[in-house]
Amino acid sequence: MTLRRKKITVIGSGFTGATAAFLAAQKELGDVVLLDIPQAENPTKGKALDMWEAAPIQGYDAYVKGTADYADTADSDIVIVTAGVARKPGMSRDDLVQTNEKVMVSVSEQIAKYSPNATVLVLTNPVDAMTYTVYKTTGFPKNRVIGQSGVLDTARFRAFIAEELNMSVKDVTALVLGGHGDTMVPLTRYSFVGGVPIESLIAPERLEEIVNRTRNGGAEIVNLLGNGSAYYAPAAAMVEMAEAILKDQKRVLPSIAYLEGEYGYENLCLGVPTLLGANGIEKIFELELTDEEKSALDYSAEAVKSVMGVLSN
Amino acid sequence: MTLRRKKITVIGSGFTGATAAFLAAQKELGDVVLLDIPQAENPTKGKALDMWEAAPIQGYDAYVKGTADYADTADSDIVIVTAGVARKPGMSRDDLVQTNEKVMVSVSEQIAKYSPNATVLVLTNPVDAMTYTVYKTTGFPKNRVIGQSGVLDTARFRAFIAEELNMSVKDVTALVLGGHGDTMVPLTRYSFVGGVPIESLIAPERLEEIVNRTRNGGAEIVNLLGNGSAYYAPAAAMVEMAEAILKDQKRVLPSIAYLEGEYGYENLCLGVPTLLGANGIEKIFELELTDEEKSALDYSAEAVKSVMGVLSN
Amino acid sequence: MTLRRKKITVIGSGFTGATAAFLAAQKELGDVVLLDIPQAENPTKGKALDMWEAAPIQGYDAYVKGTADYADTADSDIVIVTAGVARKPGMSRDDLVQTNEKVMVSVSEQIAKYSPNATVLVLTNPVDAMTYTVYKTTGFPKNRVIGQSGVLDTARFRAFIAEELNMSVKDVTALVLGGHGDTMVPLTRYSFVGGVPIESLIAPERLEEIVNRTRNGGAEIVNLLGNGSAYYAPAAAMVEMAEAILKDQKRVLPSIAYLEGEYGYENLCLGVPTLLGANGIEKIFELELTDEEKSALDYSAEAVKSVMGVLSN
Amino acid sequence: MTLRRKKITVIGSGFTGATAAFLAAQKELGDVVLLDIPQAENPTKGKALDMWEAAPIQGYDAYVKGTADYADTADSDIVIVTAGVARKPGMSRDDLVQTNEKVMVSVSEQIAKYSPNATVLVLTNPVDAMTYTVYKTTGFPKNRVIGQSGVLDTARFRAFIAEELNMSVKDVTALVLGGHGDTMVPLTRYSFVGGVPIESLIAPERLEEIVNRTRNGGAEIVNLLGNGSAYYAPAAAMVEMAEAILKDQKRVLPSIAYLEGEYGYENLCLGVPTLLGANGIEKIFELELTDEEKSALDYSAEAVKSVMGVLSN
Repeated sequence: MTLRRKKITVIGSGFTGATAAFLAAQKELGDVVLLDIPQAENPTKGKALDMWEAAPIQGYDAYVKGTADYADTADSDIVIVTAGVARKPGMSRDDLVQTNEKVMVSVSEQIAKYSPNATVLVLTNPVDAMTYTVYKTTGFPKNRVIGQSGVLDTARFRAFIAEELNMSVKDVTALVLGGHGDTMVPLTRYSFVGGVPIESLIAPERLEEIVNRTRNGGAEIVNLLGNGSAYYAPAAAMVEMAEAILKDQKRVLPSIAYLEGEYGYENLCLGVPTLLGANGIEKIFELELTDEEKSALDYSAEAVKSVMGVLSN
Repeated sequence: MTLRRKKITVIGSGFTGATAAFLAAQKELGDVVLLDIPQAENPTKGKALDMWEAAPIQGYDAYVKGTADYADTADSDIVIVTAGVARKPGMSRDDLVQTNEKVMVSVSEQIAKYSPNATVLVLTNPVDAMTYTVYKTTGFPKNRVIGQSGVLDTARFRAFIAEELNMSVKDVTALVLGGHGDTMVPLTRYSFVGGVPIESLIAPERLEEIVNRTRNGGAEIVNLLGNGSAYYAPAAAMVEMAEAILKDQKRVLPSIAYLEGEYGYENLCLGVPTLLGANGIEKIFELELTDEEKSALDYSAEAVKSVMGVLSN
Repeated sequence: MTLRRKKITVIGSGFTGATAAFLAAQKELGDVVLLDIPQAENPTKGKALDMWEAAPIQGYDAYVKGTADYADTADSDIVIVTAGVARKPGMSRDDLVQTNEKVMVSVSEQIAKYSPNATVLVLTNPVDAMTYTVYKTTGFPKNRVIGQSGVLDTARFRAFIAEELNMSVKDVTALVLGGHGDTMVPLTRYSFVGGVPIESLIAPERLEEIVNRTRNGGAEIVNLLGNGSAYYAPAAAMVEMAEAILKDQKRVLPSIAYLEGEYGYENLCLGVPTLLGANGIEKIFELELTDEEKSALDYSAEAVKSVMGVLSN
Repeated sequence: MTLRRKKITVIGSGFTGATAAFLAAQKELGDVVLLDIPQAENPTKGKALDMWEAAPIQGYDAYVKGTADYADTADSDIVIVTAGVARKPGMSRDDLVQTNEKVMVSVSEQIAKYSPNATVLVLTNPVDAMTYTVYKTTGFPKNRVIGQSGVLDTARFRAFIAEELNMSVKDVTALVLGGHGDTMVPLTRYSFVGGVPIESLIAPERLEEIVNRTRNGGAEIVNLLGNGSAYYAPAAAMVEMAEAILKDQKRVLPSIAYLEGEYGYENLCLGVPTLLGANGIEKIFELELTDEEKSALDYSAEAVKSVMGVLSN
């Protein structure tokens, strides 16, 4: 038995990756390696150094190393994957899928080589399909390859509810299933503020507007920024999942899991309620759904399959 | 507009009061005054000094002052009342009520004199009746006199659920209404783990056992300690409520409010879901209850009234 | 006496400003307004919304509002100024000074109009001169206009020492005086690791290298990033100073103060050790300096004066 | 490589032990086992349960188990020893030493049996001698048996300085060497407030009073409490040391180490500046002392040896 600092690698040093590295260091989850491709080596090092220089002020004991060399990631406990391209004007969805698939394959091979015991968290879009690619390429057991969508989607829903009611975000609970984006399935009857059902606090048509705003939460930020996509909340979501695993917290958080029959789906990665602990996804919860909810989830699953159909492998 | 440190007074320097003072200091909610009667002045000062000596290690900037002089409490933003006696063997319930009523009257007069704008949080048992006494004696508006029971009862329920399921306490949500103790009304259909209904995770008879354990949560600790009652969780509950008010957090937490028709009750202090912010209780939520739940709440209200019948005023 | 959330305005929604807003929200220092010019209104709103969506995950109760309208900043307790341009290739120093001077004048007028009681923290470069401009333009008392340089310079020095020795940043203390950048004056004899003098742990020539690296700490990051300058550590520095003031912590931190005779300088803003509390700079400490240190500080003051000579006013 | 929760055992469930268990849980350092003798089993369980019930409110994921069975402590990473008796009126120093020596021997045998790889932190008084006994009885390497005195003594000194100057405890640094109690050696020339020497802020005679108050810091609390000794600051000190080791923080903190020639002492446990990381005491720093400081340290060492002379072994 030895005590050692845990090790978190973040692949991709763009805004989301850098923010994830920073949030992980702040929480002293372990030492952090921020990696990007050789062409981005210097900026990656610059961001990591800047974070390290913030440590004495913020008071965290976590070293952040920037690198372009996968050898520096060896024996990571967690690898957070944010690498990949964003969809640009004129780029077809299929191009996006295939470009990022290649990135995932490359990244997965390096992870499998250098950190064979790591748990991998995937954020790259389209995230359900990319999680599938990482699962297949790493060859890791399914519990150790996990995609992020539900923590973020749920957080957006909670933030909108809190703002609508002028009540604390701490007390708003919610649950969102299904694919990331416009096919997500928010379970409004399972949403509460300090135990008070939100359906008793917000009129149905207004609640529907909030649900729709949540579905389009990513696009809303993209449109506002004009040049890029959200990174604070996505990074926070990844780090919350990483913390659950690194500290074996047994958190019940929605995540993208490889399904083998759950909810009636096979060979598919989809957002479901999961138990996250030292072994990654330690359990998948199968909720009883209403017919309407099940239809929405089926629709979501179909959308994910359609994207998966574009994958080369 | 001036920036100033907020001021929290804790009345009663026993275990619960001292622990509440410590937790408030740790959170840097403001400077803390810990007050007890003149006979206990030295131990009160000793505890406060010990907390202050922990500040450099724990890294909090909050001064803790021990005193027996109410002048030191002047202009407090929050007053936490933990003073009073505990029920001893051979002491009748009526003796307990009347003894603590006198303590509440004395304390309330001093609060009204020295901190006329404070919000008062009451923990002393029987807490529903004692909250009523403090409300009447201070003459403060009803939103600024608040009793604690539901945050603690809910926390115990959440802890037991988390332990039963080996899942994170962070994700267990629950709601408990009614009087503190064996007439409390846990709303199990409003209890979730990360959005998953606990009724789908725990069999009904086992859930009933957990509910009963929660009802007797205070007695369980009393029996174990042999000489005293719980203080960590009660103090944490008080400080969470204090934080909600001091930071104007708009938290939705159960608390003991003076009712004027809510849930059909009048001139009674009872545990209900409330919104806590800068103005104390800013809203009382009236949940739709099942007949069974309403009966249980009626029973709880009757029990509180019965205790109130023993009050001298 | 009323309890209210404090209000922090950050002017400039670039990387440093946005990061400062995020860190202030994380610490629940109050509600945050992030402001930029109308042309940047949408990205500013996007970043603020993204931070708000992270709140349920990170668990902070602080609303972040993006805006281009100074009316939204009204009655701020603290205003953090990060607006201005960075020096671009081909831009002379004088052009930089005069361009940012205009920005400071414009920003200061709005601050004085909308938040006449605020304390202002300045980060815009060249920071010593820009602090002077904000002081003169707002007409605020000198204790309420404060520049940042020493917290950041000290943090970099501490980070480099911690890395060199493989010891915790928590235990490295240091003090840096003078102008920001290559004329800063690190007082190595006042630098310790857990009370152990660093001069006993690091050889003189190596320590000199570390001092030089600190002097060029900003340029090191600029060179690595290729396109921009440091923002994590600078934002953390601003937020630490803001916290000291908002919570009246009486922190002893180096900051840029308007001097009236201290250290023998007049009518000059320069980095000195200060006491930061509710009234901004509550005290300036005059250290006894060695002849060598005093010469270095004189040189630094001359450099600041030289920049100030370029100011229009 | 597996992720697992770390395990902290606290032996002795009195005020200090219980507070240490609580603070360790709050920091989520790992799961906590609080152990006392069979006669105290129920109160120990009661305290642990109370802490666990506070977890949902304070938001920490750490289980606290009360027990009287050493088997529950198996494979602890850290064992904090607070067991033993306090000196009572009429009890000679030698009686105290011999009574607590027996407790240490018994405890050490159990630790060696159940947690052979643990690092042990000792708080029981007289702590220098008791650390020696634990070192000898466990047979653990010297780096894994560590006594606490300097973190607490330093904290008291820092708190008194902060109070004297009305400056933040966060910025007061200090260093105290030697035996715990009235022979401690505060190095006032190594004490600073934000880098400003305290000798420039406090007159010599007043500083001497503060030094003396620090030397008698434990007695001051004992006298105030009337019935017991300090526990908040001592527990905080233990937990800071435990955190340094569990997180491999490489903190530079004063601690009681077994000396083999350092500072000229042999076969003695004495307070010295140390580096605390995953391997316990990873380094002992030998400061250059003035003649006066060395004399004071010699005196302190002699006092420790005199106590050790009373040990049976």
